[in-house]
Amino acid sequence: MTVYESRRQRLYDWMAQENIALAMFEDTESRRDPAVRWLCGMPADALLFLSVDRHSILIPWDTNMAARMGQADILMPYNDFDRQAEKAIRGTLDYLKIPLSSKVEIPPVTPYLSFLRYVELFSDFDVICRKNGIHQEVVHLRSVKDMEEIARYRKIATLTNEIIDLLEEQVRAGSLTTELEVALFIEAESRKRGCEGLGFETLAAGPARSFGIHAFPPYTAGAFASAGLSILDFGLRYEGYTSDVTMTFARGTLSKTQENMLILVQQAHDFALDMVASGEHCRSIGLAVEAFFSKSKKVMPHNLGHGIGLEAHEAPSLRSGDDNDWVLKPGMVFTIEPGLYDNQAGGCRLEDDILLTEAGAEVLTKSRIVLL
Amino acid sequence: MTVYESRRQRLYDWMAQENIALAMFEDTESRRDPAVRWLCGMPADALLFLSVDRHSILIPWDTNMAARMGQADILMPYNDFDRQAEKAIRGTLDYLKIPLSSKVEIPPVTPYLSFLRYVELFSDFDVICRKNGIHQEVVHLRSVKDMEEIARYRKIATLTNEIIDLLEEQVRAGSLTTELEVALFIEAESRKRGCEGLGFETLAAGPARSFGIHAFPPYTAGAFASAGLSILDFGLRYEGYTSDVTMTFARGTLSKTQENMLILVQQAHDFALDMVASGEHCRSIGLAVEAFFSKSKKVMPHNLGHGIGLEAHEAPSLRSGDDNDWVLKPGMVFTIEPGLYDNQAGGCRLEDDILLTEAGAEVLTKSRIVLL
Repeated sequence: MTVYESRRQRLYDWMAQENIALAMFEDTESRRDPAVRWLCGMPADALLFLSVDRHSILIPWDTNMAARMGQADILMPYNDFDRQAEKAIRGTLDYLKIPLSSKVEIPPVTPYLSFLRYVELFSDFDVICRKNGIHQEVVHLRSVKDMEEIARYRKIATLTNEIIDLLEEQVRAGSLTTELEVALFIEAESRKRGCEGLGFETLAAGPARSFGIHAFPPYTAGAFASAGLSILDFGLRYEGYTSDVTMTFARGTLSKTQENMLILVQQAHDFALDMVASGEHCRSIGLAVEAFFSKSKKVMPHNLGHGIGLEAHEAPSLRSGDDNDWVLKPGMVFTIEPGLYDNQAGGCRLEDDILLTEAGAEVLTKSRIVLL
Repeated sequence: MTVYESRRQRLYDWMAQENIALAMFEDTESRRDPAVRWLCGMPADALLFLSVDRHSILIPWDTNMAARMGQADILMPYNDFDRQAEKAIRGTLDYLKIPLSSKVEIPPVTPYLSFLRYVELFSDFDVICRKNGIHQEVVHLRSVKDMEEIARYRKIATLTNEIIDLLEEQVRAGSLTTELEVALFIEAESRKRGCEGLGFETLAAGPARSFGIHAFPPYTAGAFASAGLSILDFGLRYEGYTSDVTMTFARGTLSKTQENMLILVQQAHDFALDMVASGEHCRSIGLAVEAFFSKSKKVMPHNLGHGIGLEAHEAPSLRSGDDNDWVLKPGMVFTIEPGLYDNQAGGCRLEDDILLTEAGAEVLTKSRIVLL
């Protein structure tokens, strides 16, 4: 049994229990959902249907691509349905002879207007759109990585760490002096190592732009790692899975504010790591780090961390919001990324990727604050 | 009056006419909407509210960035609302003293579950979510570029054409021989010319991968422009606006199938261009090209073209679907991109950017099929 089949089997069981006849997963330009890739290998632009009688139907935009990458029982071209989800749903209901009145579950992110349309078109079925349905079940399953995914993360971490070392070396040697050079260096080194690409557009912000949480534009032809604070946030994507690290480069004589930021961010990073343990509430770690910063009258304007996997941001979330009920479990892979930003002094962020095992937290990456 | 103010004035008038008291625009990680940038300059990660009494409130995630780029009347940090849209809506209703029971319009892409939540939380207002509301009005306004946007497009086209020429030159000279080299060349040349970045991830597919409409991964360390057909699809992003062109490189002795594909795609491109005229139905052009291909028993598996602007895909659409009622007007900027793909022979696509003026179609870009 392939890894995709075994994942689908778990969902078929869940569907039987929940009395769901058919479930739709949608990964299109309007709404991306890597659940499709997780369930059948197709990397993008497809609908995937699972039926409680244990059939999977992949409906891809690009059939040549699907023939190579999509591992489902049945393949039907999206073009046969005029690339319209509603026609694909009807086609699937007919093809699989789904009994009238049975439950058909659609993604929880389905727009209100599409939902109305589906309810009207499929009034002969019971169309369901809910928060804690099969899609959330997949989010939960994906949040705990399996043996194969963990092995892949060790590999990605090795590649990421090689590039972290090279970056420090090349910046120290003066070979990378602009945001553009740094970003292109990462692009090239990642592809040479067999990466699919990057997990997200590299954020390389020299001292003139490091005040921003996510620099805009992500990188320019301007100076990087010149006097002051520079932030470099990047991730490699390897067989679909992404790493996500942030380094800070500090050059020259720093102001008291800047020095203080570096110290606090490093301390917050280490403090958060110490709290990582199976059974710990993600929210508590987020709150503790915010409390740590506020003792120094500082505010971190973003979340402390997030799960990584087929998405750069996935479950669990390490934010402090009162609706965050994620609890750490062995197998979870996530970031810790405290940061502080100042309109004049610039910014500092330190981000590492953590794997939680039965034995405790394992810091996969070797990100760092580099003093030049 | 800034360009942002004058755009907002048009919407305030529209709101008065439609009796909408408050409208929300949302550009967040879950749902991107460049309407926010179009209306106030803030490039990402913010909510924007417009009220019928002619106020604009920007609620950004990154306040340092907003202080530099967001041009709205009032700025309130998203963090003050715990980064939750529902709290930001309530805060705005209170701040602007929006009268009870009045109409509050939210984006048409709002998920069903969020819509239910808003209706419950804001039962003291009339929450509206519809297809042809203020958001669609913005889509219409954005589909016809103003003088400033057209000037910007002439500039982007010049930069794009410089890079097209360089690409042909460097590939012919043998300096660019892998997908990676081609992609990094475009990244570097675009930034050197002051571009913000690229409109989308470059698709560089050598002969081994050009069978795919959108190659996956987008580029690799593999060969480009070696014997057979290679596709290169890229776009520059300049001050927010993107170009979008596709070149095909053909090297060596081609099969009859390959030769035929090149000829048909070039003919379809020229044929479509001939049809471009003010008042022409976009759908008709799409249908005509599909009919042209089907005379040779070929099928184009994607749409003929699409508007470009702050998004790589925006209105008008040149697809042949029976629900496409876009009509060409002077000021529209869009692509024409016929393509054919074969599992064995590979693929060919030719894409140019067109500006429609009162005088007719102006082909802004100089994309081409390069025979090597």
